Amino acid sequence: MTRRLRLVVAYDGGPFSGWQSQPNRNGIQDHLEAAVRKVSGQNVRVHGAGRTDAGVHAIGQCAHVDLANAKFIAEKWREALNASLPPTIRVRRSRYVSARFHARFSARAKIYRYRIWTGRVLSPFEYGRVWHVTGSLDFDRMSEAAKCFVGKHDFKVFAANRGKPEASTTRTLSRVVVQHRGDLLFVTLEGDGFLYKMARLIAGCLVACGRGKISRDQVERMLREGARYSGWGAAPASGLILERVRY
Amino acid sequence: MTRRLRLVVAYDGGPFSGWQSQPNRNGIQDHLEAAVRKVSGQNVRVHGAGRTDAGVHAIGQCAHVDLANAKFIAEKWREALNASLPPTIRVRRSRYVSARFHARFSARAKIYRYRIWTGRVLSPFEYGRVWHVTGSLDFDRMSEAAKCFVGKHDFKVFAANRGKPEASTTRTLSRVVVQHRGDLLFVTLEGDGFLYKMARLIAGCLVACGRGKISRDQVERMLREGARYSGWGAAPASGLILERVRY
Repeated sequence: MTRRLRLVVAYDGGPFSGWQSQPNRNGIQDHLEAAVRKVSGQNVRVHGAGRTDAGVHAIGQCAHVDLANAKFIAEKWREALNASLPPTIRVRRSRYVSARFHARFSARAKIYRYRIWTGRVLSPFEYGRVWHVTGSLDFDRMSEAAKCFVGKHDFKVFAANRGKPEASTTRTLSRVVVQHRGDLLFVTLEGDGFLYKMARLIAGCLVACGRGKISRDQVERMLREGARYSGWGAAPASGLILERVRY
Repeated sequence: MTRRLRLVVAYDGGPFSGWQSQPNRNGIQDHLEAAVRKVSGQNVRVHGAGRTDAGVHAIGQCAHVDLANAKFIAEKWREALNASLPPTIRVRRSRYVSARFHARFSARAKIYRYRIWTGRVLSPFEYGRVWHVTGSLDFDRMSEAAKCFVGKHDFKVFAANRGKPEASTTRTLSRVVVQHRGDLLFVTLEGDGFLYKMARLIAGCLVACGRGKISRDQVERMLREGARYSGWGAAPASGLILERVRY
């Protein structure tokens, strides 16, 4: 009997070519599919909630896979897959779900966190896991600008071109908050969907606001009128973490 | 004028061959010496407080170096050296000190921390930075056994052979404490000196106590009488961090 297995997956994005299957077989998806094949002999497609770019991390990526030979109890799949996966990809939870569940199409919201280190010296243990920004950042300006992003907007200025045009560039963000703990600054973003590089473009824009290169007024015009300004760009992949997918 | 510079150094031990200079030039010491050479053109010896093994990490390793051409203010050395070092080795602080200061001989105490992950799934972000121990550990037995190590003892059973005999295997530990935060267990060790692999042997012994393979009584006999028991060994390097050196 075919059963659908739902996986919650964490990974350090550093060693991999992003979520999506690649010709070099080094996508997270490739590694998961290889692990399923090794454990069960089945050639399957693993469907993820969203494609994270090369270098982007995940604590709570969600995926599903249909297993013709669902030979284990659900928890056993976690153990078996982890035994075959590289240690920097971990299945945190596994459970059987209804065939109506789809990791991508059933997702109601995604939560990303973007981490920025503002201290002089970056800890070796944070290397590859934050954006190290030197020079001072105005926290209040960043917090104020973050509020502009909340709500339903046309995010076309905050989307990179992925080759094919998006059906719609309108998305709704329910939360964009900047917080800090000592020299670590983090931006939490929650929304019903994210365009290509959208989270990193918003984080990059907020840092430009903190540096005084972009004003809150300009952010509003980018969102309202699709105005384009120079002096900012996408924040690096290393600082971004897919925290959680809500269903 | 020759001046002595004191450095506080952090490193992720994973990519390196330990502190000590190696023929492959991949010791932390080699990288620091290469950075000083690149910045100042001087061939120098960097003296560390202690040699950490391959894979052992440091937050607060301490070192000194004598500079014939002390061309910078002390803080500038930090920036210049960090610009030449791999990102997984960082100089956290740099300052000029008296020639009476010696990173190794002036050290009064060292603080190590050994980290153990007891949960089912190890986070990809902790891989290489903890010892993943599966199966249950009796926390109270570990805490009780830890107390045996405090004080002045002959630690010969807790020393690996480094080729040449130690002048003395007696050391004084002022603190050996086991704590936990959720599934993370950590052992803090403070002492006037540590024999080769001593911190890892104590951590390994404490885990054996937690598993019920070694009793508190046996620990006492190892320390008092030099008794030897099987069923335990050194904990892996990845879980160990040199936290701080006291002067």
